[in-house]
Amino acid sequence: MSLFRRTFTKRGAPPGEIQVEPGGIAPRASVMEFDLTDLREVSHADLAEVPIPTDASKITWVDIQGIGDGTAIRDLGLRFGIHPLAVSDMVHMGQRPKVDRYDSGILVVLRMVLVDERGVEGLVWEQVSVFLGPTWVLTVQETHEDVFDPLRQRIRGGRKQIRGSGSDYLAAMVIDAIVDGYFPVLEAYSDELEEFEDLILTDSEAEPLGDLYTTKRELAALRRAAWPLRDALQRLLRESSSPLSATSQLHLRDTLDHVMQVVDVTESFRELASSLVDVHLSMVGQRTNDVMRVLTVISAIFIPLTFLAGIYGMNFDTTKPGNLPELEWKYGYLFFWGVCLTVGIGLLVLFRRLGWLGGAPTMSAESNR
Amino acid sequence: MSLFRRTFTKRGAPPGEIQVEPGGIAPRASVMEFDLTDLREVSHADLAEVPIPTDASKITWVDIQGIGDGTAIRDLGLRFGIHPLAVSDMVHMGQRPKVDRYDSGILVVLRMVLVDERGVEGLVWEQVSVFLGPTWVLTVQETHEDVFDPLRQRIRGGRKQIRGSGSDYLAAMVIDAIVDGYFPVLEAYSDELEEFEDLILTDSEAEPLGDLYTTKRELAALRRAAWPLRDALQRLLRESSSPLSATSQLHLRDTLDHVMQVVDVTESFRELASSLVDVHLSMVGQRTNDVMRVLTVISAIFIPLTFLAGIYGMNFDTTKPGNLPELEWKYGYLFFWGVCLTVGIGLLVLFRRLGWLGGAPTMSAESNR
Amino acid sequence: MSLFRRTFTKRGAPPGEIQVEPGGIAPRASVMEFDLTDLREVSHADLAEVPIPTDASKITWVDIQGIGDGTAIRDLGLRFGIHPLAVSDMVHMGQRPKVDRYDSGILVVLRMVLVDERGVEGLVWEQVSVFLGPTWVLTVQETHEDVFDPLRQRIRGGRKQIRGSGSDYLAAMVIDAIVDGYFPVLEAYSDELEEFEDLILTDSEAEPLGDLYTTKRELAALRRAAWPLRDALQRLLRESSSPLSATSQLHLRDTLDHVMQVVDVTESFRELASSLVDVHLSMVGQRTNDVMRVLTVISAIFIPLTFLAGIYGMNFDTTKPGNLPELEWKYGYLFFWGVCLTVGIGLLVLFRRLGWLGGAPTMSAESNR
Amino acid sequence: MSLFRRTFTKRGAPPGEIQVEPGGIAPRASVMEFDLTDLREVSHADLAEVPIPTDASKITWVDIQGIGDGTAIRDLGLRFGIHPLAVSDMVHMGQRPKVDRYDSGILVVLRMVLVDERGVEGLVWEQVSVFLGPTWVLTVQETHEDVFDPLRQRIRGGRKQIRGSGSDYLAAMVIDAIVDGYFPVLEAYSDELEEFEDLILTDSEAEPLGDLYTTKRELAALRRAAWPLRDALQRLLRESSSPLSATSQLHLRDTLDHVMQVVDVTESFRELASSLVDVHLSMVGQRTNDVMRVLTVISAIFIPLTFLAGIYGMNFDTTKPGNLPELEWKYGYLFFWGVCLTVGIGLLVLFRRLGWLGGAPTMSAESNR
Amino acid sequence: MSLFRRTFTKRGAPPGEIQVEPGGIAPRASVMEFDLTDLREVSHADLAEVPIPTDASKITWVDIQGIGDGTAIRDLGLRFGIHPLAVSDMVHMGQRPKVDRYDSGILVVLRMVLVDERGVEGLVWEQVSVFLGPTWVLTVQETHEDVFDPLRQRIRGGRKQIRGSGSDYLAAMVIDAIVDGYFPVLEAYSDELEEFEDLILTDSEAEPLGDLYTTKRELAALRRAAWPLRDALQRLLRESSSPLSATSQLHLRDTLDHVMQVVDVTESFRELASSLVDVHLSMVGQRTNDVMRVLTVISAIFIPLTFLAGIYGMNFDTTKPGNLPELEWKYGYLFFWGVCLTVGIGLLVLFRRLGWLGGAPTMSAESNR
Repeated sequence: MSLFRRTFTKRGAPPGEIQVEPGGIAPRASVMEFDLTDLREVSHADLAEVPIPTDASKITWVDIQGIGDGTAIRDLGLRFGIHPLAVSDMVHMGQRPKVDRYDSGILVVLRMVLVDERGVEGLVWEQVSVFLGPTWVLTVQETHEDVFDPLRQRIRGGRKQIRGSGSDYLAAMVIDAIVDGYFPVLEAYSDELEEFEDLILTDSEAEPLGDLYTTKRELAALRRAAWPLRDALQRLLRESSSPLSATSQLHLRDTLDHVMQVVDVTESFRELASSLVDVHLSMVGQRTNDVMRVLTVISAIFIPLTFLAGIYGMNFDTTKPGNLPELEWKYGYLFFWGVCLTVGIGLLVLFRRLGWLGGAPTMSAESNR
Repeated sequence: MSLFRRTFTKRGAPPGEIQVEPGGIAPRASVMEFDLTDLREVSHADLAEVPIPTDASKITWVDIQGIGDGTAIRDLGLRFGIHPLAVSDMVHMGQRPKVDRYDSGILVVLRMVLVDERGVEGLVWEQVSVFLGPTWVLTVQETHEDVFDPLRQRIRGGRKQIRGSGSDYLAAMVIDAIVDGYFPVLEAYSDELEEFEDLILTDSEAEPLGDLYTTKRELAALRRAAWPLRDALQRLLRESSSPLSATSQLHLRDTLDHVMQVVDVTESFRELASSLVDVHLSMVGQRTNDVMRVLTVISAIFIPLTFLAGIYGMNFDTTKPGNLPELEWKYGYLFFWGVCLTVGIGLLVLFRRLGWLGGAPTMSAESNR
Repeated sequence: MSLFRRTFTKRGAPPGEIQVEPGGIAPRASVMEFDLTDLREVSHADLAEVPIPTDASKITWVDIQGIGDGTAIRDLGLRFGIHPLAVSDMVHMGQRPKVDRYDSGILVVLRMVLVDERGVEGLVWEQVSVFLGPTWVLTVQETHEDVFDPLRQRIRGGRKQIRGSGSDYLAAMVIDAIVDGYFPVLEAYSDELEEFEDLILTDSEAEPLGDLYTTKRELAALRRAAWPLRDALQRLLRESSSPLSATSQLHLRDTLDHVMQVVDVTESFRELASSLVDVHLSMVGQRTNDVMRVLTVISAIFIPLTFLAGIYGMNFDTTKPGNLPELEWKYGYLFFWGVCLTVGIGLLVLFRRLGWLGGAPTMSAESNR
Repeated sequence: MSLFRRTFTKRGAPPGEIQVEPGGIAPRASVMEFDLTDLREVSHADLAEVPIPTDASKITWVDIQGIGDGTAIRDLGLRFGIHPLAVSDMVHMGQRPKVDRYDSGILVVLRMVLVDERGVEGLVWEQVSVFLGPTWVLTVQETHEDVFDPLRQRIRGGRKQIRGSGSDYLAAMVIDAIVDGYFPVLEAYSDELEEFEDLILTDSEAEPLGDLYTTKRELAALRRAAWPLRDALQRLLRESSSPLSATSQLHLRDTLDHVMQVVDVTESFRELASSLVDVHLSMVGQRTNDVMRVLTVISAIFIPLTFLAGIYGMNFDTTKPGNLPELEWKYGYLFFWGVCLTVGIGLLVLFRRLGWLGGAPTMSAESNR
Repeated sequence: MSLFRRTFTKRGAPPGEIQVEPGGIAPRASVMEFDLTDLREVSHADLAEVPIPTDASKITWVDIQGIGDGTAIRDLGLRFGIHPLAVSDMVHMGQRPKVDRYDSGILVVLRMVLVDERGVEGLVWEQVSVFLGPTWVLTVQETHEDVFDPLRQRIRGGRKQIRGSGSDYLAAMVIDAIVDGYFPVLEAYSDELEEFEDLILTDSEAEPLGDLYTTKRELAALRRAAWPLRDALQRLLRESSSPLSATSQLHLRDTLDHVMQVVDVTESFRELASSLVDVHLSMVGQRTNDVMRVLTVISAIFIPLTFLAGIYGMNFDTTKPGNLPELEWKYGYLFFWGVCLTVGIGLLVLFRRLGWLGGAPTMSAESNR
């Protein structure tokens, strides 16, 4: 995932002009038109064939998948009476999540996340725009994959609430489906952080810094998706003359609660990740210190002993009295070993008493309850 | 405690649909119906038997314990006229604390904490939902254990205020009981942090990092319980046309004060925990440095001496004048020891003068008044 | 000072019920009743004897010292027409500072600090509640010691402003006296931080970490006392229909300015304390590094020399040509010393050139202008 | 780029007085006057020749490039009826981005960024002031280079929207063009941060600290450009009686979205840069520790062995029984080597078992997935 | 500069009472009375001689320098009809910057900074109070030095705007002059931070920690001066029924912009200073590590060689076959040197290959572009 991707405005282009990024997926439209009793589903490969909804008694959901042909989408948008600026926002990726009110309806831009069985490593972020018209909802997504299948099933299943409420309820359901998609991601990160915790608190050989950094970076992306959406939805719900029905507002408020929870949990996760980095660093540092301490103790014991051995390797003229008399002693060699053992063991005991040796083996046991 | 648990929405499910997590406790209802003079307590194992409160002169508290049967709770909720979204929030765990107003009443979702004699190690967090209807209060909790016994005793004891005020007062008391439950937790953490302080400031062999991390993580959970509740209660109390009586508002304001104090103290504790980590790390680092310094001093003294001893172990042809004349001196050996002692003690004195030895023994004494 | 102390609600007790902490000081009341001309001072050991102020032309200040008898205070409160919740807040310690409006008056809870000649080590925090009734002010404090003596002197001295203004002015003066008490504490901490600065920037043997931690902890307590008071006073002063006279509002605004300054300065002090910790740590680390560097240089110079000496201590058969010919040289020993001095001084010069030695002696001089 | 540059007020000068910084570029004016059908472009080297727009049916864009002659600009401003304070803001560089309303129009001060092919190393920041008059827009920029060419092309191209809307639409387009110029900068920083990531996570010899510091400093400049603009535009759009047409407001709202995204992304980048510093430091520290550990292990193994060799170099009188009998053994030398190999390999195996050797070679492989 | 200075309230003194700090400068008043045509300047050593401005057609600026005689100032204030609380704020130093409205006018308290040629080391902070009366402005400053000379020159110069506008315009100009005085300070700090950057990124022997700490502490003082002023001015300008003329409001808005810029830049500087500390610490740490690494490599190479030399210094009985046969070899000594060179160079090459040597010399070159 790139840190920052932006395709939505070529420098100096007039706002509302559409520039299609090369390599985009060719758009196709799948249209659901329904009321309480009827449901008609049509798929159009050519956006020009999508009819303008005219029957005010029916709800129409036009779902455009792929943004590879900006002109076709713009033409469709104009036919639907959508402001060019809104169409441009829908086609250009990398927008900040937002809610904009136009005369002809409300545009909601948000980020949809697709998660597969690989967990946090297989996340795909995609921009989805939802335009709420009087009797229809137009959604534009980047690819053919989405999180809307259960919603489509509910429509097909003929559930009263969704079939009998207005287009605003349909739009609220679309947004709700996208926000619900954030929770599996949170769960995946929760699992990953718990793995990090286990790793760090028990295995001091682990090297999780690079991975923790990646996790923090991805959590920042999640926050950038949820935080602006929270503000936008709050503003939409606080407006005095809302175009939304009471039911839709109730459901959007519920969705807003979910967004706020996503923000809360993401923040907590970011803090935990930072704390884990600190704990890891200090544990590794602690361990290195313990190792160095023990190694240095070995040197500190043997260096004086080597000095001792060096003394008795000196070639002073022992025929002169007073020069290295120990060399002539009967038990000189035993005496030497006695001194060595005394000094060595003495230092060892001293260092152990001072606590300079004891840390290493018991550390990992003590640090976990 | 898992970092993030969420059971409240299956992806793509229609909002308000209920999915029961397997393994939940079968719900049972305990109903208290009372006015100033009468009190009737009934317990129902089958939620379908719970009667709808009809007598407007009495207050009814329906307390459902266990959420293992979502359908039964939903049916009960519908019979009580509670909005399906509200019922769904009550049954699905892991909600963000919140206050939602519905036409039929007010839903308050919060987190209850149970603490046993084990202190901070035995905390159990549980979600409690409180629905305030016109003459009744419906509470839904996860398990059979709760913090409401003193409240029940007060009702049974026939205290005027609770028996004679409306259902909103009862709801306020329920919320107050839950928030009061946060304080013993704060006290437990206060004790634990003071233990950490003692440990860290006096015992440099302690390894509190893992435990401090766990404490910070748990304090984050406490904050996630209290922070959104504060906002929700503030919004409820600030509303112009409140459905709450003046007395209930007064008591809720008091509860809000408590929530704010919980937030304040939790924040303080989190900062203190971070400071303690820093103090611990620098004390341990300081101590390791002192140890290494002393050990290195030992090497720095004996390595030159070993060099000296090595010199007099050399096999230069001493018959040639000028080659190692000291070896032939009468007091050569004494001379050697003289040089060794001079160099060794000289370096020792020098290092001590420079302050390179003195830190270790006095550190812990100096760092505490 | 404990991190968190709370006596104000026994779990599950009805709000407003009073539980006296054992060991509290028995309450006594000192009553001042005055108008512009008269002043009557009475002291009551039994709170039941305190008369209810009835003369609307006089101001009465009932000051209760000691909270050891909750029932007596509650009875007094009820006789004065104070809401039970307010009475309970007055008696239970550990409250968050706050301003609550009741029908019968305004309750202000704040924290008073007593400082003696020991400076920051002798701070005593105490809760004071001020209830402003129509013609009287009731204050409840934890002990017999307080900061009100100068205020009492001003009343006794017959100063017009305080004798002739209403009870709200008296309450404002009481709050002002308490807030004024925060400044000597700030001054004490200012002195202490400056001592820390001197210590850290000049004396690298100091061990101020434990003390700095304590200071940060105490500053957090000060902030917890001032921050909520700021919010509460702001809200009181912003209310449209204030029960306070213009003069009292003017004085309270002045007090609010002082509280805001306390908050500002406390925040600054906390940041400075954190910066000082960082400076101290890096100075100590710097110094340790310098020491270790010098010690390691000693080893790095003498270890090669010892190797040299070892060579000429080898017992190769010098009768075979080419085996250690230096041993037979006429000036072999001098040659050896020449090599040693060349190598040793060469390394020393090299290390000094590379700047590996120079840090230690000049550091402390350079780091202070 | 200097940390802080300020030319806009000489100390004590009356506000609104103009002081031209020496060395500025001599101003020239390029004027575009247009309506739906006509377009007249004139360039004036002498500002005094610029005519005051009088034809209310036409839009005039007066673009002044260079601020080397403050008097000329002031005279022009006065002729256009612009408040002296506004003129002074336009001429003096280093302003904080802002939106000010005057009787005669709206002044918008912002910072324009020019990026060339060198990427982040070739950024040039420049102040641009936009004054929106009734039928004209006056822009003042520091140099002759700008980001307005595409906008000029659109006007020349005769696009209806810009030729037929009012001067407020033109001003909105100018602001939009400047804000659009921030995105290439964000993209450049995105690329740079990704390079840093690669560098740090894979190459532990890299030394990116200085560069990362520079990047953080430049990101701070970007934030200082975008943050105040966000507030100013929000305030302008929230005003009840806006002088802007609905279309212009719609476009400015879009521009505001872009500014908010710039702020968001900049904040993310700053946090990532900080995290990268931490990751780098700990990786370098980790690696140094590994190296030191291995080196210390070498010493810890050979120092005891040297002690052993020293023993058998001692000159004890082997004619006395018990003094160094090994020297007389038949296989004494082999015995010595046996002991050496046993001790050396034993220590090596021990250290490897304890995990004191294994970190170094596998670290970089483990830390990247 | 002391961390916290407070002279403005003696504990327990009635608010509004004046206590003069001993050692203050005796106050003198310089009065300018002017209208469009006339200007009269008088200086009074005795404040009692200052006449009360009565001529409503003239503007009077009474500037009191020195606060050594509180009683005189209070009497003057009372004669001018200034509220005692306001007078007390003017006389007592160490106030938080603020704007207070009184019936008789507006009091603005701010902090003036005097900078001399010594740059940041010669800053003097001083409190200035500005009281805006109906036709006069009263300013009180701590000493005789101020930043008002250019303003006085403008008045003397007879500039229409200042001579012909009201007293509110004069007050705005006074405030503007003080705020303008902050910019040279920002520039001085900008220069200082750039010096720190150069020092830290190029010279690793520098010890800037103490100085950086001092800079952070002074920047905190600057922020404490600007931050509250920003809030106070914002509140003054947002008031619906402002006593200020439109022109004065326009100029104050400009001043507010400057204050906001001071706050922005100060915050940036504080962050940069913190970043610089981090960069410095890690560069020093890096360098120490490099040094230690090289030194340790020397030991790690020579210690095995010393072991080798020790071997051939052993006194095994070489008459026994197999005991140290190398000693009898013809080219034993050469063989020994061959082994030494092989081992030594082999280790050196190995360490260099592993990158354990290469860091030191290239570091400083790499870290700067």
